[in-house]
Amino acid sequence: MKKVIFIVGDGMADRPCREYEFKTPLEVADRSNLDYLAKKSVTGIVDIISPGIPPGTDYAHLAIFGYDPKKYYIGRGPLEALGVGLTLKPDDVAFRINFATVNDNLVVIDRRAGMIEDTEELVKEIHGMTINGVEVIAKKGTAYRGALILRGKGLSHEITDIEAKPGNRINFSKPLAKNDEAKFTADLLNKLFLEIHNKLKNHSLNLKREKEGKYPANAILVRGAGKYKPVDKKFNEKWKMKALCIAGVGLIKGIARYVGMDILTPEGATGTLDTDMMVKARACIENLDRYDFIFVHVKAMDVASHKGDFEKKVEVIERFDEMIGYIASNVEDAVIVVTADHTTPIEAKDHRGDPVPIMIYASNIRVDDVDKFTERACARGGLCRIRGLDIMPIIADLLNLTKKHGA
Amino acid sequence: MKKVIFIVGDGMADRPCREYEFKTPLEVADRSNLDYLAKKSVTGIVDIISPGIPPGTDYAHLAIFGYDPKKYYIGRGPLEALGVGLTLKPDDVAFRINFATVNDNLVVIDRRAGMIEDTEELVKEIHGMTINGVEVIAKKGTAYRGALILRGKGLSHEITDIEAKPGNRINFSKPLAKNDEAKFTADLLNKLFLEIHNKLKNHSLNLKREKEGKYPANAILVRGAGKYKPVDKKFNEKWKMKALCIAGVGLIKGIARYVGMDILTPEGATGTLDTDMMVKARACIENLDRYDFIFVHVKAMDVASHKGDFEKKVEVIERFDEMIGYIASNVEDAVIVVTADHTTPIEAKDHRGDPVPIMIYASNIRVDDVDKFTERACARGGLCRIRGLDIMPIIADLLNLTKKHGA
Repeated sequence: MKKVIFIVGDGMADRPCREYEFKTPLEVADRSNLDYLAKKSVTGIVDIISPGIPPGTDYAHLAIFGYDPKKYYIGRGPLEALGVGLTLKPDDVAFRINFATVNDNLVVIDRRAGMIEDTEELVKEIHGMTINGVEVIAKKGTAYRGALILRGKGLSHEITDIEAKPGNRINFSKPLAKNDEAKFTADLLNKLFLEIHNKLKNHSLNLKREKEGKYPANAILVRGAGKYKPVDKKFNEKWKMKALCIAGVGLIKGIARYVGMDILTPEGATGTLDTDMMVKARACIENLDRYDFIFVHVKAMDVASHKGDFEKKVEVIERFDEMIGYIASNVEDAVIVVTADHTTPIEAKDHRGDPVPIMIYASNIRVDDVDKFTERACARGGLCRIRGLDIMPIIADLLNLTKKHGA
Repeated sequence: MKKVIFIVGDGMADRPCREYEFKTPLEVADRSNLDYLAKKSVTGIVDIISPGIPPGTDYAHLAIFGYDPKKYYIGRGPLEALGVGLTLKPDDVAFRINFATVNDNLVVIDRRAGMIEDTEELVKEIHGMTINGVEVIAKKGTAYRGALILRGKGLSHEITDIEAKPGNRINFSKPLAKNDEAKFTADLLNKLFLEIHNKLKNHSLNLKREKEGKYPANAILVRGAGKYKPVDKKFNEKWKMKALCIAGVGLIKGIARYVGMDILTPEGATGTLDTDMMVKARACIENLDRYDFIFVHVKAMDVASHKGDFEKKVEVIERFDEMIGYIASNVEDAVIVVTADHTTPIEAKDHRGDPVPIMIYASNIRVDDVDKFTERACARGGLCRIRGLDIMPIIADLLNLTKKHGA
């Protein structure tokens, strides 16, 4: 069976920028390899959800993997927890957490506790706690970030975050649903917040940080409550392909684990602007004999867009182009898909609902006339305008893995 | 925030006509301004509902305004009632009425009572009646037309019209549903019909008309029963834009009121072939500082199509083109959308399900290569093929008013 390499440039699509002759970063960038592949591909544009609807990265990737996000989106917390490597059980309620600095009146001084990195000892204080009979599981993420799981009976995810802007007192969690479970969980989370604060404020690491003039990591902000529910069919079973996800970003790894892919983060893949895309390219080629489907994710374009940095976005797209070149020249007769998970216009510094370009290279594809991989060129492509949920069925069908409806 | 000007040419799209070298009226017309705007826009074609499905004007406009007509279509009666300025309450059952002429055996002599215009006194006889405890509200529309509301308990809209072709005896209303409400309402409406006939046949106005050799307006035809239910979110709240509708046609004004737009009918906007489109253009520009979203509706193309008059349709499209020119040259950095609500082919003299052309002008839009605003040219545009319900999300997203799904 042919191998599939599916490559996503996160937030790579854009809108024309007045300051750059009304071109997009993708239009301005040197795309030698992308364009070379486009010439041999069928191209098109994709509404990852539907026209005009901007998806978050997590929501978008579920659609890209062929899982309807309306049904399968379980919230940011569980996906982050999966991304840091925690194992979830059905009905676990999970959150993403930040270590933060608060004063004695619970006013937030710094939302990231001075960008603390070494939180291992602090996480140990939290992990394994029990509160009202509910088990607390915690794990460190990158830098000041982490994930938290509540495991027990009668829990709800319909509660608000524990959050505040700097200079404001903490907003405690409140139930969003009018039921006992939501009230129980919000109360429990607030109690846990206070117990953690009490533990951390006198922790030796924090006393040491204070002596050094650093912000102590004496509290956690708790966000993105979601209840875990496994997908009914893992990716391998649903699409009949053994899948590997190569990514640096925790959230993407979380989604990939959620749908049952194996995960690989090669050394140097950071999930941000300085990521080494070529190590991903090499990891992709090296793993081709062990997998049927390799998903390669690059976050850097989205990071540049959120900063509003057009030229940086052009630069990372050109590195992305090199990565594509390496991959395309090192495979024989594979299916190669290149697309984006959403448009992140430089002008908006956030996700927007414009369609994204896509190309599908395969030896048996209906190659069209489009010879550029850009937002506008692909809009004239042979795929016309499709939806995010259409992509996986199209790929599976090219590989003759689909099942006929009817007789 | 940028302003949005949304312009609909009712029934403007067409099919190629054998007698005109297989061109459509839009292809034959001088479109200098439309084409100029098309060059700077993204274009495409729209299935207002879905391919091959012809919508009525009311049904189509719900989709265009972003309200799924499957859910929100409440029937012609309530929309006409709103259009003549009546205020509806939830569960009111409303109808459109015609004054008509019947003989003593209730055979229809003239469906429009000799095109009577001065029905104010007759409407007064109907408005305020009470029948079986149900309140009757009536208001004059244009010429022989009007609207009727039944307000009370236990009413149903699942009943047939009171109608007949000329030379036939009136068909009384029958229940369409097998429940007490439908039977009660049909019986009540029939009783009302007879009471009104008895009142009108001896009315001085009608006796005078008979003396003058005119048809007396001695009965009403009652059509389009619908039960009013307000939309769950008004346009302003749903799309975060304060909206004005500029239209001459009652039905369009009814739909606009139903979704909560303000309404303006400038002097000279008649909703038919002789309408003054330039007063609409000026009204649009004059109101731009008070509104975020201005909807401009022109009915004339549809009227020409229903008459099967190709050359008249070309002429009104050319006046529409002038209107577009005035609007486009009097705004700075607005979003301008031009489309049609359905195809009304000259050959069919009725609505058909062919897609309609669309163009969206905005400074941050992905301008395509299309330089003509016609059915066929727009089919090669950068929007490809979208649905009526996609239009409003695309506009809201261009203005950065959409909410991200997921994180």
